[in-house]
Amino acid sequence: MQLGLVGLGKMGFNMRERLRRAGHEVVGFDRNQEVSDAESLADMVGRLSAPRVVWVMVPHGAPTRETVERLGELLEPGDIVIEGGNSRWTEDQANAALLAEKGIGYLDCGVSGGVWGLENGYGLMVGGDAELVERAMPIFDALRPEGPRDEGFAHAGEVGAGHFAKMVHNGIEYGLMQAYAEGYELLAAADVVKDVPAVLKAWTRGTVVRSWLLDLLVNALGEDPELAELRGYVEDSGEGRWTIEAAIAHAVPAPVMSAALFSRFASRQEDSPAMKAVAALRNQFGGHAVHKAGPTSGAGEVK
Amino acid sequence: MQLGLVGLGKMGFNMRERLRRAGHEVVGFDRNQEVSDAESLADMVGRLSAPRVVWVMVPHGAPTRETVERLGELLEPGDIVIEGGNSRWTEDQANAALLAEKGIGYLDCGVSGGVWGLENGYGLMVGGDAELVERAMPIFDALRPEGPRDEGFAHAGEVGAGHFAKMVHNGIEYGLMQAYAEGYELLAAADVVKDVPAVLKAWTRGTVVRSWLLDLLVNALGEDPELAELRGYVEDSGEGRWTIEAAIAHAVPAPVMSAALFSRFASRQEDSPAMKAVAALRNQFGGHAVHKAGPTSGAGEVK
Amino acid sequence: MQLGLVGLGKMGFNMRERLRRAGHEVVGFDRNQEVSDAESLADMVGRLSAPRVVWVMVPHGAPTRETVERLGELLEPGDIVIEGGNSRWTEDQANAALLAEKGIGYLDCGVSGGVWGLENGYGLMVGGDAELVERAMPIFDALRPEGPRDEGFAHAGEVGAGHFAKMVHNGIEYGLMQAYAEGYELLAAADVVKDVPAVLKAWTRGTVVRSWLLDLLVNALGEDPELAELRGYVEDSGEGRWTIEAAIAHAVPAPVMSAALFSRFASRQEDSPAMKAVAALRNQFGGHAVHKAGPTSGAGEVK
Amino acid sequence: MQLGLVGLGKMGFNMRERLRRAGHEVVGFDRNQEVSDAESLADMVGRLSAPRVVWVMVPHGAPTRETVERLGELLEPGDIVIEGGNSRWTEDQANAALLAEKGIGYLDCGVSGGVWGLENGYGLMVGGDAELVERAMPIFDALRPEGPRDEGFAHAGEVGAGHFAKMVHNGIEYGLMQAYAEGYELLAAADVVKDVPAVLKAWTRGTVVRSWLLDLLVNALGEDPELAELRGYVEDSGEGRWTIEAAIAHAVPAPVMSAALFSRFASRQEDSPAMKAVAALRNQFGGHAVHKAGPTSGAGEVK
Repeated sequence: MQLGLVGLGKMGFNMRERLRRAGHEVVGFDRNQEVSDAESLADMVGRLSAPRVVWVMVPHGAPTRETVERLGELLEPGDIVIEGGNSRWTEDQANAALLAEKGIGYLDCGVSGGVWGLENGYGLMVGGDAELVERAMPIFDALRPEGPRDEGFAHAGEVGAGHFAKMVHNGIEYGLMQAYAEGYELLAAADVVKDVPAVLKAWTRGTVVRSWLLDLLVNALGEDPELAELRGYVEDSGEGRWTIEAAIAHAVPAPVMSAALFSRFASRQEDSPAMKAVAALRNQFGGHAVHKAGPTSGAGEVK
Repeated sequence: MQLGLVGLGKMGFNMRERLRRAGHEVVGFDRNQEVSDAESLADMVGRLSAPRVVWVMVPHGAPTRETVERLGELLEPGDIVIEGGNSRWTEDQANAALLAEKGIGYLDCGVSGGVWGLENGYGLMVGGDAELVERAMPIFDALRPEGPRDEGFAHAGEVGAGHFAKMVHNGIEYGLMQAYAEGYELLAAADVVKDVPAVLKAWTRGTVVRSWLLDLLVNALGEDPELAELRGYVEDSGEGRWTIEAAIAHAVPAPVMSAALFSRFASRQEDSPAMKAVAALRNQFGGHAVHKAGPTSGAGEVK
Repeated sequence: MQLGLVGLGKMGFNMRERLRRAGHEVVGFDRNQEVSDAESLADMVGRLSAPRVVWVMVPHGAPTRETVERLGELLEPGDIVIEGGNSRWTEDQANAALLAEKGIGYLDCGVSGGVWGLENGYGLMVGGDAELVERAMPIFDALRPEGPRDEGFAHAGEVGAGHFAKMVHNGIEYGLMQAYAEGYELLAAADVVKDVPAVLKAWTRGTVVRSWLLDLLVNALGEDPELAELRGYVEDSGEGRWTIEAAIAHAVPAPVMSAALFSRFASRQEDSPAMKAVAALRNQFGGHAVHKAGPTSGAGEVK
Repeated sequence: MQLGLVGLGKMGFNMRERLRRAGHEVVGFDRNQEVSDAESLADMVGRLSAPRVVWVMVPHGAPTRETVERLGELLEPGDIVIEGGNSRWTEDQANAALLAEKGIGYLDCGVSGGVWGLENGYGLMVGGDAELVERAMPIFDALRPEGPRDEGFAHAGEVGAGHFAKMVHNGIEYGLMQAYAEGYELLAAADVVKDVPAVLKAWTRGTVVRSWLLDLLVNALGEDPELAELRGYVEDSGEGRWTIEAAIAHAVPAPVMSAALFSRFASRQEDSPAMKAVAALRNQFGGHAVHKAGPTSGAGEVK
């Protein structure tokens, strides 16, 4: 079928390719004309036959909101917008209400798979009306992995459910990554273990901890066995934070997911104000030696 | 090749079967004569030709130690003992020293795979001398999953390295399970998501969080979509504790693995003394209402 | 000086008393006419001479917002409203803007001290214009503890700073309480310690951990040495959640404050969906025994 | 009364002074002859009249064990050794058994108070026989703070109970310090709060979080309002680790105390191997930019 696709970045670009390989006609638009099929959003819409389906794959927040608003002006009753980016689920309800006024349908879709999705397919979680989901199913079927539909696709619930599910997916992902990372650090710290990459690789087929993330960590250690080329500096992208906020809103204990998030925060600090305060306290009550701040943060000689 | 196998419980029983399917001759011994091939440990040893290889697969602690001591009396120089149970890695060094006095070799082997290992093979992590590892390789090759050896087997280091690696594996496992569990609880708590099992199932092929544990959780939800048949009561088996102790010994931060362990501890408490103390404090400073203990712990009416 | 005081609950009632003891003229209003000095908010305002100072001490959220709006109608330019309840600091800016349109000043004041404040005085943290703070200083001086002003009062910053500081105060409080509580539980769990209340009492004068909260815990144990009368069920009141949300917004690691919050969440669960998921996983991969849900949650026999 | 005091370091030196001020006769011994009253341990013992009381205040581990062994040779039946250092409570039982063979009594005493103990007195927690405790009471009374005995002294239980109680005290201390530290960091991170030291100072008299540690933090901020002179590098001294190990041994959830310990571990890392692993994973699945390790760890330019 025919699809308009707004946003041809790291994710959207690959998705267009996967959809075309499946035989769909994709008219992509991106501000970067080098990758865009259309000159403008209006041009893209103009090249689609009603009833249209337009997939939005731009950064969350203002870019997504503005795109949805502009599509509200350009599309017609009966068309569908699928927000496939990383919107916070609470934004979907506003988007859906805006478009509903004009008779335009709205689905939100969480998409997982990263740069590997082009070949492996993407895990999809969708929120919205069942009838709209059904109309867009050929697109979902092309994007999701081969195999049974329910192993790569879920109609999770009403509008917002797709992004809520994706948010939780990412919160879990933070926890999983941190669990492997702590274990890796402990293996590397112990003298008795001589070949850490070999141990992780030996886990990839038969053990309880085998997973795709483990495969990726094995890949990474294959390229750089001591991760000597990297700094332990880790960004977070929004969903991890929203997950903890949602956990708080629902009074759900989330010690593991929050520990993973806080570890990322800490990884980005040159020095920790909190630990300065602890050092100051120890100095106050016990006369414990403290480390003075050096000439430049993090680079100073330890005195 | 020929193997003596001591301990035919849930794990050992299946391992004997897998080894026999691979064409090895296994003489198993268990105190339970219904499953045992030999009448006694001495009988088992007597039925093996030197140089012998004996795999020990009994509960860790005293049963393992006593078995190793007894094997030290029964075996001959040049024989090998492989401790494949869940010993703490620090016990391996004592075991190895004991047997070394008699010229008997010692390997420790962490084994992962649970009840699925019979069909899937077991992930194996081995510690000890390379020469001994080489001699036992046909056994390791039969137990590990099909495919490249290094994806299911590692010679991790010296004596103790196998169990150290297995210990960390289990620590990671605790963290992974807790991450999925927290995410599951959050999905279940949110009204917007209508079909939690479907969401988890949709993650199994294309997403970043796909794993064998996720497959198992999907299985469990397939059988009992709201886990209504279960209580949230979770044992821990030793390795999780040892992992945190090892992390402390190496000054490795382990917030995720420890949070997972502590969640298990808390799951087994009818009431929390710590939270009683917090309730008492709130009552003291703020006159906040408290919940009185009921007629029997956990069953009392909330007043 | 003269003060209008809206809200004569657990906190406001005592504050009126403390202010009167200091010689101030307080006209209190509460919906509960038994404790109220005025028949209505309008009546209260009518009995104050301009320029008026009105302190709001009602539950946060809608009650506070509505009170502020109504005061906006009743007060005159040059009057001051002090929001002394537990508003989220982000609400202060809206309140201040609303009143600023009418020429009415606004201060936010975090108040700590609980039921003990009547005798001990209240710790005060204020946000807003210095000139307004100065005008209300006689009130602050009467409410705060005796002694140097800066040991019981701070002009923390602009509008919102008072409630932000109070929010963090409560986040810290959660962490402190949980630290004592965990230590209490560990002491109580160890056979070697025979007299837990005596140990905590011995900490109250000379140790590093002495504090007012410790004194309160000692009080509580004096009344009920094993806290046998209480259930470990602990509410949370908002500030603890907001603190973690603020920590996330500022990328500040908050492992201790969040652990304290999550422990409260968990304390209120009859059973943990997350731990059910962990139990389900262990059963799936290891055939581990699980505990079946009983006839009623939490009261069921463990099978 | 008369006391032998072995170890005149930061703690012992002040304790001798406090005991002398109370009128006790203290014969101190230290390897550092500049502060020592006796030339040798034997000399010290020789200058005491039987039945002797000797207080040991040397570093835990080998120094304490060797001192106890040597005292076992030098002392006579009926004498008492008080181990007042930071021994692990499990070591007390061995010490007590060693001395019991020779008819020498043994008490273990946890001592809290740091450098402030000279003036404020020390909080004391003692383990051992009641009869021995009674004999040493004049010493305990001189060391503990003025006021009721039970507010600065506890006979906690049998041998080991004193150090167990002190260990938990320190575990709590870690949690308290971290709670204040996280709150401090959050206050400092928020633009709305203009005067962080003033806020903390305003908490010192009337609030729920008032404590001696808070007073110390206020002191520290008084000297260095942004803690600019310090690095956030924090040692840990043993008891924090033992507390978590004891919590694990008793299956007591300790999320706050462990988070505080792990934050100290992390504070000492130039880079985090775990976070390198997380960075590697993100790079693998999402093509996320990573920060390359610079020319020297921690000082490298972020690329």
